[in-house]
Amino acid sequence: MPDIAGVTQSNPWDDVGSAGVVPERTATVRDVHLSSGEVLERVDVVYETLGTLSPARDNVVLVCHALSGDAHVAGRRESDPGVVGWWDAFVGPGKAIDTDHYFVVASNVLGGCSGTTGPSSIDPRTGKPYGLDFPIVTIEDMVEIQARLLDSLGIDRLLAVVGGSMGGMQALAWAKQHPQRVASVLGIATTWRLAAQAIAFNEVGRTAILGDSAFADGAYYGGPQPKHGLAIARMIGHITYLSDESMREKFGRRLRDRDEHAFEFVSEFEVESYLAYQGRRFTERFDANTYLYMTKAMDYFDLIGQDGTLADALRGTPSRWLVLSFSSDWLFPTYQSRELVDALRCIGARVSYAEIPSPYGHDAFLLEPEQQYRYISSFLSSVLAEEREEAPR
Amino acid sequence: MPDIAGVTQSNPWDDVGSAGVVPERTATVRDVHLSSGEVLERVDVVYETLGTLSPARDNVVLVCHALSGDAHVAGRRESDPGVVGWWDAFVGPGKAIDTDHYFVVASNVLGGCSGTTGPSSIDPRTGKPYGLDFPIVTIEDMVEIQARLLDSLGIDRLLAVVGGSMGGMQALAWAKQHPQRVASVLGIATTWRLAAQAIAFNEVGRTAILGDSAFADGAYYGGPQPKHGLAIARMIGHITYLSDESMREKFGRRLRDRDEHAFEFVSEFEVESYLAYQGRRFTERFDANTYLYMTKAMDYFDLIGQDGTLADALRGTPSRWLVLSFSSDWLFPTYQSRELVDALRCIGARVSYAEIPSPYGHDAFLLEPEQQYRYISSFLSSVLAEEREEAPR
Repeated sequence: MPDIAGVTQSNPWDDVGSAGVVPERTATVRDVHLSSGEVLERVDVVYETLGTLSPARDNVVLVCHALSGDAHVAGRRESDPGVVGWWDAFVGPGKAIDTDHYFVVASNVLGGCSGTTGPSSIDPRTGKPYGLDFPIVTIEDMVEIQARLLDSLGIDRLLAVVGGSMGGMQALAWAKQHPQRVASVLGIATTWRLAAQAIAFNEVGRTAILGDSAFADGAYYGGPQPKHGLAIARMIGHITYLSDESMREKFGRRLRDRDEHAFEFVSEFEVESYLAYQGRRFTERFDANTYLYMTKAMDYFDLIGQDGTLADALRGTPSRWLVLSFSSDWLFPTYQSRELVDALRCIGARVSYAEIPSPYGHDAFLLEPEQQYRYISSFLSSVLAEEREEAPR
Repeated sequence: MPDIAGVTQSNPWDDVGSAGVVPERTATVRDVHLSSGEVLERVDVVYETLGTLSPARDNVVLVCHALSGDAHVAGRRESDPGVVGWWDAFVGPGKAIDTDHYFVVASNVLGGCSGTTGPSSIDPRTGKPYGLDFPIVTIEDMVEIQARLLDSLGIDRLLAVVGGSMGGMQALAWAKQHPQRVASVLGIATTWRLAAQAIAFNEVGRTAILGDSAFADGAYYGGPQPKHGLAIARMIGHITYLSDESMREKFGRRLRDRDEHAFEFVSEFEVESYLAYQGRRFTERFDANTYLYMTKAMDYFDLIGQDGTLADALRGTPSRWLVLSFSSDWLFPTYQSRELVDALRCIGARVSYAEIPSPYGHDAFLLEPEQQYRYISSFLSSVLAEEREEAPR
């Protein structure tokens, strides 16, 4: 996912529309049975909440993050108030997910590296970081951890589960795993399963990490990190998050700080410097093992499962759906969103769909708040009104 | 470029339509002044020829190879007759470039690793391989070497210069550098300059190689090779040579040799095994330094140069042009071919253009001989007829 987490705003006192300082909390979930058959005795889940839970507990919006995101979805980080959340343009007072009306919950996913138990956490059996002894986790496992977190918060039902990219996969999985707990699903720039091309890009990133001379079979904590491999993976990722069009507009063939070619193997095109910077910066905040686990979870995700059709997989979904895709997104192409929407329509589900014209590629789910505002905002208020009429509490 | 070179045919005696066994030759060119300002005292150029040079020397077709190609364009390699050329489906008796009528010349490019002087060649100043002391070369430098090779063969004028991908860049450069020497230019799946996205993919590949722990600043000859980095670069390349559609058709989400997920970090999807195999195989036949030099040459290539327009750059071209692009090629997208064609039409050049519908992505220039046959074959005969009418010798 694009590196929005960790952005420092230019004016830290300009809190118009900000959700303010958001404290990070931790819940503990025990005895977690995973898709792989393995069991985790204890999972710590880092989460944040924004807004106020209504007395009827009917205004909960769960926001699921993408590959490189975390629980800090919006507002200022309590431990470092200069850091605003990765979806701050979307979540806050008056924003698409209006924290004056909704109680937003966001947690770091299982296998992550931002507080929730993952490969960099201490394995209680050994007293050392798990590394590759951490079990492979699936999108479905992430959802189960979120469900258990909500249990611990006393939240039975979600007004909406929302996510972009890998976060959208979680939203889709919620609808299948807990159909009665979700009034609505918002899947943005996402897919019901990756196609071969996206798996291929993930695999190249993993190969770069696994073959890094510092990788040490994943037991690199406390020693040199596999930064080269992780940076390569991130560079590949960044290309796939942009589009040919947006890269042409943003960089073209411009050289950086020079008029003529260097005739050396140095970064000289602006696009090269950009990628090198993004790769380097990512290694300062992200764990290479988590990158492996997140991409594997995405590759494995297939809403159909072993048999049947997409319509079968979703048949009987009582949720309302909003699906948004972006015209220039070639990593999670719009045809995949349309396949999902078609399947939902086949089974009579209530689904709204928009393909938003945007040059920003996959990144558009982070970069187009205005265009998404009207869809998300009106959808959520409509679902809330319906929930309250149907079940006035 | 796609790894067609080195394919072993199933039946080595099935020579129908084959150009037969083709010997490799070497010419030497001296005192080569490069775009960078550097001078190479001596360049050995490996080349092959097919067909018969007409007494009037008016039937010469120069075929330029792409990133991973070589001089062995068609027929059987003399030193290893099981190996057929990388464009064997296009060049031979009765094929699109019919060796019963045309005298085909193909050479390994400057900077290559298949015989022509490049970074793995011995630097006469040190007695050791050049490594990164080899000067950066440009597409224009490659063309100059080809021109000098043709000089040495007594060939003043080309009936056609033909190339796909990076080979097409050379064909375009020929038209600009030696307009009076080329009766026609065939640019296939190529571009007049790379856009930012393609430069970005090249840069990630280079970063993988340059950061390989075995790279040793390019002086790895005789020691461990930077195979990991080169394999990563090749894997990225392969994804860009295919298309989302062709990858879905070829691999989909099928698992290899298993019914269920491994829940381990192993290659389990077929597309993963394919890429790993392609990456590994490439490192057995290709030099990592040459990969750096070839991609840099492609990145630098810009037919316009420092100023002006594409039309200015080509103004006055007396050549006839055939431009072919492929609908699903997203590495050298068709819009770039159309820009070239538009510029040629603006200046009144005679140009034929076809966007060939194909699901094979960039690879289509290697994989669609039938579709290209009719364009290439009729274009070449028409140019030859015109040449002979205009200048009957």
